[in-house]
Amino acid sequence: MANITKKVSWSSRGDESGATGEGTPLLNGSEQPRPSRQLSGGSSIFQIGRLSTVDLEEEMAADEDSLRGRPKEIPHNEKLLSLKFESLDYDNMENQLFLEEERRMSYMGFRCLEISRWVVCGLIGFLTGLIACFIDIVVEQLAGFKYQLVKENIEKFTEVGGLSISLTLWAVLNSAFVMVGAIIVAFFEPIAAGSGIPQIKCYLNGVKIPRVVRLKTLVVKVCGVICSVVGGLAVGKEGPMIHSGAVVAAGVSQGRSTSLKRDFKIFEYFRRDTEKRDFVSAGAAAGVSAAFGAPVGGVLFSLEEGASFWNQMLTWRIFFASMISTFTLNFFLSIYHKKPGDLSNPGLINFGSFESGSITYTLYEIPLFIAVGAIGGLLGALFNVLNYWLTIFRIRYVHRPCLQVMEAMLVAAVTATVSFTMIYFSDDCQPLGPDSKEEYPLQLFCADGEYNSMATAFFNTPERSVRSLFHNPAGTYNPLTLGLFTLTYFFLACWTYGLAVSAGLFIPSLLIGAAWGRLCGILLASITSTDSTWADPGKYALIGAAAQLGGIVRMTLSLTVIMVEATGNVTYGLPIMLVLMTAKIVGDYFEEGLYDVHIKLQSVPFLHWDAPATSHWLTAREVMSSPVTCLNRIEKVGTIVDVLSNTSTNHNGFPVVVQVSDNDEPAKLCGLILRSQLIVLLKHKVFMELARSRLTQRKLQLKDFRDAYPRFPPIQSIHVSQDERECMMDLTEFMNPTPYTVPQETSLPRVFKLFRALGLRHLVVVDDENRVIGLVTRKDLARYHLGKHGLEELQLAQT
Amino acid sequence: MANITKKVSWSSRGDESGATGEGTPLLNGSEQPRPSRQLSGGSSIFQIGRLSTVDLEEEMAADEDSLRGRPKEIPHNEKLLSLKFESLDYDNMENQLFLEEERRMSYMGFRCLEISRWVVCGLIGFLTGLIACFIDIVVEQLAGFKYQLVKENIEKFTEVGGLSISLTLWAVLNSAFVMVGAIIVAFFEPIAAGSGIPQIKCYLNGVKIPRVVRLKTLVVKVCGVICSVVGGLAVGKEGPMIHSGAVVAAGVSQGRSTSLKRDFKIFEYFRRDTEKRDFVSAGAAAGVSAAFGAPVGGVLFSLEEGASFWNQMLTWRIFFASMISTFTLNFFLSIYHKKPGDLSNPGLINFGSFESGSITYTLYEIPLFIAVGAIGGLLGALFNVLNYWLTIFRIRYVHRPCLQVMEAMLVAAVTATVSFTMIYFSDDCQPLGPDSKEEYPLQLFCADGEYNSMATAFFNTPERSVRSLFHNPAGTYNPLTLGLFTLTYFFLACWTYGLAVSAGLFIPSLLIGAAWGRLCGILLASITSTDSTWADPGKYALIGAAAQLGGIVRMTLSLTVIMVEATGNVTYGLPIMLVLMTAKIVGDYFEEGLYDVHIKLQSVPFLHWDAPATSHWLTAREVMSSPVTCLNRIEKVGTIVDVLSNTSTNHNGFPVVVQVSDNDEPAKLCGLILRSQLIVLLKHKVFMELARSRLTQRKLQLKDFRDAYPRFPPIQSIHVSQDERECMMDLTEFMNPTPYTVPQETSLPRVFKLFRALGLRHLVVVDDENRVIGLVTRKDLARYHLGKHGLEELQLAQT
Repeated sequence: MANITKKVSWSSRGDESGATGEGTPLLNGSEQPRPSRQLSGGSSIFQIGRLSTVDLEEEMAADEDSLRGRPKEIPHNEKLLSLKFESLDYDNMENQLFLEEERRMSYMGFRCLEISRWVVCGLIGFLTGLIACFIDIVVEQLAGFKYQLVKENIEKFTEVGGLSISLTLWAVLNSAFVMVGAIIVAFFEPIAAGSGIPQIKCYLNGVKIPRVVRLKTLVVKVCGVICSVVGGLAVGKEGPMIHSGAVVAAGVSQGRSTSLKRDFKIFEYFRRDTEKRDFVSAGAAAGVSAAFGAPVGGVLFSLEEGASFWNQMLTWRIFFASMISTFTLNFFLSIYHKKPGDLSNPGLINFGSFESGSITYTLYEIPLFIAVGAIGGLLGALFNVLNYWLTIFRIRYVHRPCLQVMEAMLVAAVTATVSFTMIYFSDDCQPLGPDSKEEYPLQLFCADGEYNSMATAFFNTPERSVRSLFHNPAGTYNPLTLGLFTLTYFFLACWTYGLAVSAGLFIPSLLIGAAWGRLCGILLASITSTDSTWADPGKYALIGAAAQLGGIVRMTLSLTVIMVEATGNVTYGLPIMLVLMTAKIVGDYFEEGLYDVHIKLQSVPFLHWDAPATSHWLTAREVMSSPVTCLNRIEKVGTIVDVLSNTSTNHNGFPVVVQVSDNDEPAKLCGLILRSQLIVLLKHKVFMELARSRLTQRKLQLKDFRDAYPRFPPIQSIHVSQDERECMMDLTEFMNPTPYTVPQETSLPRVFKLFRALGLRHLVVVDDENRVIGLVTRKDLARYHLGKHGLEELQLAQT
Repeated sequence: MANITKKVSWSSRGDESGATGEGTPLLNGSEQPRPSRQLSGGSSIFQIGRLSTVDLEEEMAADEDSLRGRPKEIPHNEKLLSLKFESLDYDNMENQLFLEEERRMSYMGFRCLEISRWVVCGLIGFLTGLIACFIDIVVEQLAGFKYQLVKENIEKFTEVGGLSISLTLWAVLNSAFVMVGAIIVAFFEPIAAGSGIPQIKCYLNGVKIPRVVRLKTLVVKVCGVICSVVGGLAVGKEGPMIHSGAVVAAGVSQGRSTSLKRDFKIFEYFRRDTEKRDFVSAGAAAGVSAAFGAPVGGVLFSLEEGASFWNQMLTWRIFFASMISTFTLNFFLSIYHKKPGDLSNPGLINFGSFESGSITYTLYEIPLFIAVGAIGGLLGALFNVLNYWLTIFRIRYVHRPCLQVMEAMLVAAVTATVSFTMIYFSDDCQPLGPDSKEEYPLQLFCADGEYNSMATAFFNTPERSVRSLFHNPAGTYNPLTLGLFTLTYFFLACWTYGLAVSAGLFIPSLLIGAAWGRLCGILLASITSTDSTWADPGKYALIGAAAQLGGIVRMTLSLTVIMVEATGNVTYGLPIMLVLMTAKIVGDYFEEGLYDVHIKLQSVPFLHWDAPATSHWLTAREVMSSPVTCLNRIEKVGTIVDVLSNTSTNHNGFPVVVQVSDNDEPAKLCGLILRSQLIVLLKHKVFMELARSRLTQRKLQLKDFRDAYPRFPPIQSIHVSQDERECMMDLTEFMNPTPYTVPQETSLPRVFKLFRALGLRHLVVVDDENRVIGLVTRKDLARYHLGKHGLEELQLAQT
């Protein structure tokens, strides 16, 4: 049953449910489940259970008893915290090897490193821009081909009758594209589904999502997004750019590709989590930048969603990557569009420039904007709630790849059918002016020289629809068309998000918002009948688009800048800010942002910005895991192998101690060593006895650790003979001699702040004699969250 | 002699050079000077001296010997680190009182706090906007009056001869205004001089600059900036807005004014450094936002220049304050300009909108932009170097307030004279079209219907000049006019910055840059004579302005956004970024940014983003101060009073220890207590003996500490009788029981990261038995910096 949950989760694939995939707790010291207990505070009741390792199988058995008739059900796991996610280590492992290397390096060496960081960022930006360019051109060509084909077919059958043939053609074309997209995602790389933004958020937060930054993921993502956009789904190609940028960054910065088995022997210094994270931030920013032509927005996105420690140099590098990315895309697209050198239209989506005449707004419109923001917040929350239930449904019932492919094809067919029906029954005909910019005007049943207005919204790539909603002159759409369009597209988009296809959410959200925003504008203009110039429908379409997107994703600062950069005009800055803030406040009242909803549904141990407000009750002693498996500074190889092989614990970090006395009391902390380091040590057989006998043996270098990063072999693959088990290993040189520690009385917010600010993975809790008494890891902190009834504790489960 | 240095420094005034002003080292444990030592690294030589407390007097005596004939000289002190600056404590003091209060607080309580934070931010934004509005209107009225007067006078005397009378009138008017401005600054509040940005940078970095956020400073600043702008100096009114916003924030968030002796009994929770810093960030952002109409730019400025830990909620609040500030200013100015409700022109400076037609650029202009950026970097570095030497000159010779006032008046008179001369000898006459927007067109010796073009640049507020350089059609200025203007204004602005007047640097920099940028545009157009439409002089004026400003202040991300928001158009985003980055890279090669130069000249212990690259050589053991003055958990009052009264050490933080054995070995750490807390305890006589005898005595609460914040009385003002000296004080409840600690082997970068990320003030260094062996403070870390010859150590001095 746990297997089922695994199949639909981000990080698992059917073929990996074997031995290594068995969920194993990663907490050092969380061996036995402990009873829950109740703390009652001054005014509210806290539900605090201590680190209860719940066995999902058991609980589900109980569930099945109580809910007979729904045998295939899995409990919604947003109240659980999965143990299957490992953490990344954003704190440098400052062991002797590292310090020696740093000390050997001259000032010029550091300068060279700094320059290579800039070079890497430039490359990231360049490649991300190229990918965006590739996606854009392929999508435009394929979609153009598709729409042309369908248009001709429709035109042929409009007069002779038999439009059902056109419908079938359209639906089949769409389904075929979507099928290809869904197959590669569902069967080859499930992690490439969706926009990838939640996964990148988690990565930057410090959670290791398996395979999220691999080359294969990138390939599937790019092909998948092309298929789903061409397949006419209610999706955008912008979101996936962020994920693509991140993968590019992770690849380029490591100077090798494990998938392609090529090591270019460059950038070896960057082969660790800390450096990689910085580059991934840059990649995500470059992705946003390419998608929206918004370099500053990209930087802010990266910071708002990911980083915690703001470093000026890093920010500048991120900015540089974003800049290069926009520039590259812009440059190549300008060549493609046969206007080489014209760099004024950056980004995959271009909202078009708003005319200076129509872009003023006045004071009394501010309340209207706020109202629009509130509507956006409400609709966004509705969207999120619906998608939440849908996702739970999917987790329960739609977990096999073939089912996922079929669902995707069904959605594609339904989208085509609904669109067709809407266009068919619409009688909103508009004159086809000479300066009309419609790419595929459908005449259908309209008079000659007219076109069907509903078709401009449905029979078009979403980007074009958004632009036409923003810019078409007043009167282009009638209210009924907009209303129906909003309604259908809302549900289609909601159904689509979470399918096993690569797809972005930004453009559908903008489209829904633009439609109802324009509707609001038209209604406002008709109410104040005399002077309708102020309620320009395009303006309200923009405001509505911002409101809807803000209501769904709940970003404010970065989204404001992205919108402003994409519209190319700062005049609307203030209204957009107001709208986004209102949407966020209203939306947060009902439901979290969509990305957070999905992160929660995956039970990811995500650390928020601050510890829950009312958590001063808790101290390190209560949150830490104990007892801790420690290693001695000079430890028997056999012990190390046994500790590492213990699948019931599967710890990742071990405090290194010196035993002061022989009795049972805890030993003094003298360092911290990671599983990955021990594995490398075992692999290279760095045993004291061997060192003595084989004097010529090469000393282990940092390079050996870097070569193994990030895919360290499992302990099972390392053979240690019975003789070798009796050898001793000296960890002094390899452990981090100065791990951060906290006393056991430290309050949770204080622990949290230290942990979050420094991006730690393990934090040792010591007593006043510097003896190890516990270990705090990500899951110990992520467990506590503020629920409706005060502080709640999530349960850890091996899903 | 030390006194002289004090007089020109930020934080000292003539009337405060008495007893309390005596420079006292703040480092716990830095009593005796220690010999320097030499470390030689692998490839470079490091100059590392250990914490040498240099007595400035002595060194100067030596200096005088060697440099006979220059008796009044003070060594340039950028190689020194002043001991007079205290630190702020951005780490919460989580003692028992605090934890009890937090635990008593319900979830609703935290919600209310959060809401009041938003309210405070709203108020900050509103008041900052009002102040900006006030400055703008007063400046416009007074300057209008002045220019009208002079214009009429010039017109009267142009034909009859005797223009020297006009010149005198102009010079006298200017000098009079500047005199008022300089007097209030020099005599009443020297800290209000300049733009205030370096001071706010230091504040946000964690350095306590005395009186920087007081009401009096604000009043002087506002009046001072009005006087200096109206006085025709080469200054802007934008920079001081940042300082004003910060003062407003510090005032509003504390819910009281110590200067006015009013306590509104609100926002008491915010009376500590951590909360206050957050609000000051918001205030600075609101200031930028009001000055440039750039709310996003304001947020970025605040983050780029100040914050280290990026918190999403905080960023949103800062954003909110910025938004309200722009909105308020915009709203009131729209009423003032008799267009109520028109909110499309925010900000004090408005660059005017660039017409859509002229704002494209093409690929082959990119190298030109980069070249312009490089010129900006060079000129900026030249500006900074000149200003650096000038500042040193001022520190040496112009230190008395009356001299400062005279210098300011001299500059004002010279500015008027130079301007007049330039206008007088200029023969650049332009036709006065019907649609000309010149406010004060000077005909002078031009034909009827024409005006003097040089006068539009000089005989105008700098804001208007910038705008006219950006927007006047090609041909309005001839190259000679622009060249002469650039030359004179460059030196005038350089001379002006650092005078004892409140004045901003942004506008003069923009003006210089716009002038030579326009010149470049004209030259380019004349070289490529055939098709000159692409080299629009207005475009190059904008690019030049960005380059010059970037070359002087070296901001990139925030400045890009500010420029984009101020121009109201994102098309130039990419060129501006390129230009700013180039200017920064080129400029950094020669000299630091101007703000950093001034911070260094004041010997402020400023912590940069990272530890110097090559500092892995150093460990906590080497950087820490020791021996440390510790206190026992239960300590004799007499001992505490003696420790606090010791003016030769004047420590601010004391580790609290428990002695395990009677011998001399260091004791175990159990907490940390601050001087300010001890003072409050002594003031309230929280002695164990008294507690026993007076059972009814009120228990000391957090409120008592908050009431005393931030101006804790000096120890001298607290009377402790001889009997009381024998009492004991229990520090358990008041000390921070969980101070952050590091082992002594921790490398400097690691210590630095912890210190900087958490905004610490004291970091205790312990051995493996948790015994105190040293204390790391800001100065211990700020001492190390990368010089031309590798790692250098600044010397501590009691300047």
